[in-house]
Amino acid sequence: MIPADGLKLIFCFGLNIFCWSGACVSFFFFFFCTAKMNTLGLVTLRVCAGLMGRRTLHVLPRLQRSSSGMTIPQIDEEVARLLQLKAQLDGDDGKQTFVLKTPKGTRDYNPKQMAIREKVFNTIFNCFKRHGAETIDTPVFELKETLTGKYGEDSKLIYDLKDQGGELLSLRYDLTVPFARYLAMNKITNIKRYHIAKVYRRDNPAMTRGRYREFYQCDFDIAGQYDPMIPDAECLKIVHEILSELELGDFRIKVNDRRILDGMFAVCGVPDEKFRTVCSTVDKLDKLPWEEVKNEMVKEKGLPEEVADQIGGYVSLQGGMDLVERLLEDPKLSKSSDAVAGLKDIKQLFVYLQLFRITDKVAFDLSLARGLDYYTGVIYEAILTQAGVPQTQDPQNGPGVEEASVSVGSIAGGGRYDGLVGMFDPKGRKVPCVGVSIGIERIFSIMEQKAETSAEKVRTTETQVMVASAQKNLLEERLKLTAELWDAGVKAEVMYKKNPKLLSQLQHCEDTGIPLVAILGEQELKDGVVKLRNVTTREELNIPRDSLIEEIKKRTADC
Amino acid sequence: MIPADGLKLIFCFGLNIFCWSGACVSFFFFFFCTAKMNTLGLVTLRVCAGLMGRRTLHVLPRLQRSSSGMTIPQIDEEVARLLQLKAQLDGDDGKQTFVLKTPKGTRDYNPKQMAIREKVFNTIFNCFKRHGAETIDTPVFELKETLTGKYGEDSKLIYDLKDQGGELLSLRYDLTVPFARYLAMNKITNIKRYHIAKVYRRDNPAMTRGRYREFYQCDFDIAGQYDPMIPDAECLKIVHEILSELELGDFRIKVNDRRILDGMFAVCGVPDEKFRTVCSTVDKLDKLPWEEVKNEMVKEKGLPEEVADQIGGYVSLQGGMDLVERLLEDPKLSKSSDAVAGLKDIKQLFVYLQLFRITDKVAFDLSLARGLDYYTGVIYEAILTQAGVPQTQDPQNGPGVEEASVSVGSIAGGGRYDGLVGMFDPKGRKVPCVGVSIGIERIFSIMEQKAETSAEKVRTTETQVMVASAQKNLLEERLKLTAELWDAGVKAEVMYKKNPKLLSQLQHCEDTGIPLVAILGEQELKDGVVKLRNVTTREELNIPRDSLIEEIKKRTADC
Repeated sequence: MIPADGLKLIFCFGLNIFCWSGACVSFFFFFFCTAKMNTLGLVTLRVCAGLMGRRTLHVLPRLQRSSSGMTIPQIDEEVARLLQLKAQLDGDDGKQTFVLKTPKGTRDYNPKQMAIREKVFNTIFNCFKRHGAETIDTPVFELKETLTGKYGEDSKLIYDLKDQGGELLSLRYDLTVPFARYLAMNKITNIKRYHIAKVYRRDNPAMTRGRYREFYQCDFDIAGQYDPMIPDAECLKIVHEILSELELGDFRIKVNDRRILDGMFAVCGVPDEKFRTVCSTVDKLDKLPWEEVKNEMVKEKGLPEEVADQIGGYVSLQGGMDLVERLLEDPKLSKSSDAVAGLKDIKQLFVYLQLFRITDKVAFDLSLARGLDYYTGVIYEAILTQAGVPQTQDPQNGPGVEEASVSVGSIAGGGRYDGLVGMFDPKGRKVPCVGVSIGIERIFSIMEQKAETSAEKVRTTETQVMVASAQKNLLEERLKLTAELWDAGVKAEVMYKKNPKLLSQLQHCEDTGIPLVAILGEQELKDGVVKLRNVTTREELNIPRDSLIEEIKKRTADC
Repeated sequence: MIPADGLKLIFCFGLNIFCWSGACVSFFFFFFCTAKMNTLGLVTLRVCAGLMGRRTLHVLPRLQRSSSGMTIPQIDEEVARLLQLKAQLDGDDGKQTFVLKTPKGTRDYNPKQMAIREKVFNTIFNCFKRHGAETIDTPVFELKETLTGKYGEDSKLIYDLKDQGGELLSLRYDLTVPFARYLAMNKITNIKRYHIAKVYRRDNPAMTRGRYREFYQCDFDIAGQYDPMIPDAECLKIVHEILSELELGDFRIKVNDRRILDGMFAVCGVPDEKFRTVCSTVDKLDKLPWEEVKNEMVKEKGLPEEVADQIGGYVSLQGGMDLVERLLEDPKLSKSSDAVAGLKDIKQLFVYLQLFRITDKVAFDLSLARGLDYYTGVIYEAILTQAGVPQTQDPQNGPGVEEASVSVGSIAGGGRYDGLVGMFDPKGRKVPCVGVSIGIERIFSIMEQKAETSAEKVRTTETQVMVASAQKNLLEERLKLTAELWDAGVKAEVMYKKNPKLLSQLQHCEDTGIPLVAILGEQELKDGVVKLRNVTTREELNIPRDSLIEEIKKRTADC
């Protein structure tokens, strides 16, 4: 078997070591064997072993860590690759155990929830229309770059689409950035628009409290160069109208201004480059006690303790026009032109809010920060203050919140973002914008809970009449009459059975709230009438077929 | 430099050859050098070269080819990986040129388009509600496995989300599969529901003809075990009502049954395992002439020419009840129990359609196949037959289409899918379903085109009155009155300027169709009146402030 000139064999083992930096070091072990048969028939084996190392740069995506210690989604990417590889090694991917569920953090709406949703939407639509707003719609995904650099630390929550060739896409994270993109793309400088649509965040869902990964946003925005604070005041008026009409319980609207926050940071000694990140920390005051927020400022964001304490002194303040006046006189804060500009605008805002008669619900609150990067001026947030509605987080426990009312989380929020459209405009032309987003998922949760406890039944259809029969072989007559009713615009149902029992037809009416039953029988057909039955009172009356439609419409006019 | 015992060097070159099947063959070339310095100082070099081949299975995802010659999206996956690698080698990905656009195949809806969309939706909602349907909503993405194996060859068009850790997700491809998942998950056996929402397909967009990658579907489905063909007939009635009400021009509804197709394939000699793929080919008859379809059957699907010709004989048939009767007598077709069952159901269907008085628009058409895998019984498709509406494809040119009317593409379609829910049920329990999907994007296109050519202006807001002033310094009075109107439910607008010109306020009313202007001036304020101006007639009348709201509501009652 061994040829005369000997047999050469090479064995090679490869070992790849992937480093944290994304580099790859490959080691190759070689075994070089020469087998020779000598003339005596004995086999001599000579084995040489070798080792080679090779460093490959960036075979893996570089793993970057954000300042909060989190790694960016590129880790997930590598995980994906490995999982995929695993699935391939396993053979067929995904056939192991099929789970019948909606994706994490999402939900279906059943007909009852849809009925509640429709009612809430109608209240909100009507409010927006009352204020003369138009509506637009944008795609559910945007070019990935459109969303890049708009959300600060929250960017890690963006859903990306798989690159299946073509453009890189991400699901929209809010409706504001697509709105700004729309304005820039179409060179629109003035619009008052609302937009109700779903947005997507890979957040930790808390679904019992109305927080989902897919959720509706409900935005109203005013774009255009106008006299200060007039559109801003209208946004607050809208929040006030919607929350009042929906009867969700008592609420309060906190108002602040990014320029006041920036001015405050400046006079307290926060370095410029830390404004945004410290702002994110202040934003947590509605969920965390001051001590924890301070801790994050000092330990994570690297602020000296005395700077944090100075900030603590300011963010504990809340009040009305009086507080604005007081801060305009504040020896430290008044040195910041940013803060003064912000305070003057807040003062003007309060004048308009007084005209709109809504100042009773509005408080100037220096702890309000709002997480998003794009705000440039006034910011606001509405919270429900009544107990008995689902809580979102730990009760607010910030410094200086003296009143006993317990915050139950944000239900609306917004502010001024004068720079966002300019980020999309090739020439950087600015379109000042102000807007508000209604936290409609929380509203759904509250309304659903209310419906649960209420005695009133939620109807999921609007059917006015059921076409029924007590006798057999009348399917064709029932279908004929039903079609006549449909053609006349009457909301009608018929059972899809040849010979259904009258009782089951009546039961269906009881179950779904259908008020009337049109009963056909041999005798009625002969007489040219239909027996019209009131489901609640059980009264029955023969109605001439010719006037049936009119009679049904009359009886259900208030449905 | 060379040690006494010699220097050993190994060079290794690797060459990977990736095969079409997804396997990888790696060749390693080894150069094994031994350098020895002899006692004379001369260096002897011994070089051995070696070659090793290794077959690695499935290093790449297996590349499957669909029967139409297309590869499944796993190619895209590999492309994605390579693009990503390239981007990393390039340094920063995506910062090269930022393009201000919506993703390929998607569009924004501007306020005018939204106004048209709302009108179309209302017509359709009203129809669904008239038929007693409930509505549900499902998440925009589903678990990837939920969509797996439901769409046959079209699966390659599914959008996947990037794996960012957690579940593998895909955007919904239609509303039918999520509906079936919803029924199975909630163990619902009876429901009549509609669902209007966006779905996603990585198709080649033809946007001028109303075909997008993101588009609305508008589905009505009836689930439940009922007597045959009654819910099926209602679906066709709904298509008839909606297309009639929207006044899109003349239309026709083609009807067929999957079992008739299967029976036809069987008696023509198509092997069982080719039924679905040949069905996909037949489905192209509305876009391609018979010769090309036949060509695909013979050349791509491997059918003998005489089999294709026999199919050609059947698929050229269309008619009404008479054709059904004739085919029930057909010596060949009547041998298939499948075909006979289908024909009997079509016959029953026509009886109900007669009761609904819509047979004038319905034709039994053996060329109708519908692409999707999940249909099990009756199938149907509505087409607009009138010229003057945008064409989707080449005019239909199938065999035996005798009438002169030119097909302008599908506007609605659906059918019975009795097996789909069972695919999700752990115990395989079946819930028979039948449904229809309205091609609402094409309807939008047609309506938008109509609005373009119409003289009537599309209003994008519903504002009833503009609160204006001819004099300076009346902003606060204007805001106060506007708030009063809003609080009374009047749709009102006010300009966000301290001192706008009356002309620009009036111009805004003209532009946006606001019918009334409430004009405030020093004198009016003193007299306790408001000057109410009709924008069209320019008539002005002083109205006491107390009765202003009533007067506005009266004048705009018909708006």
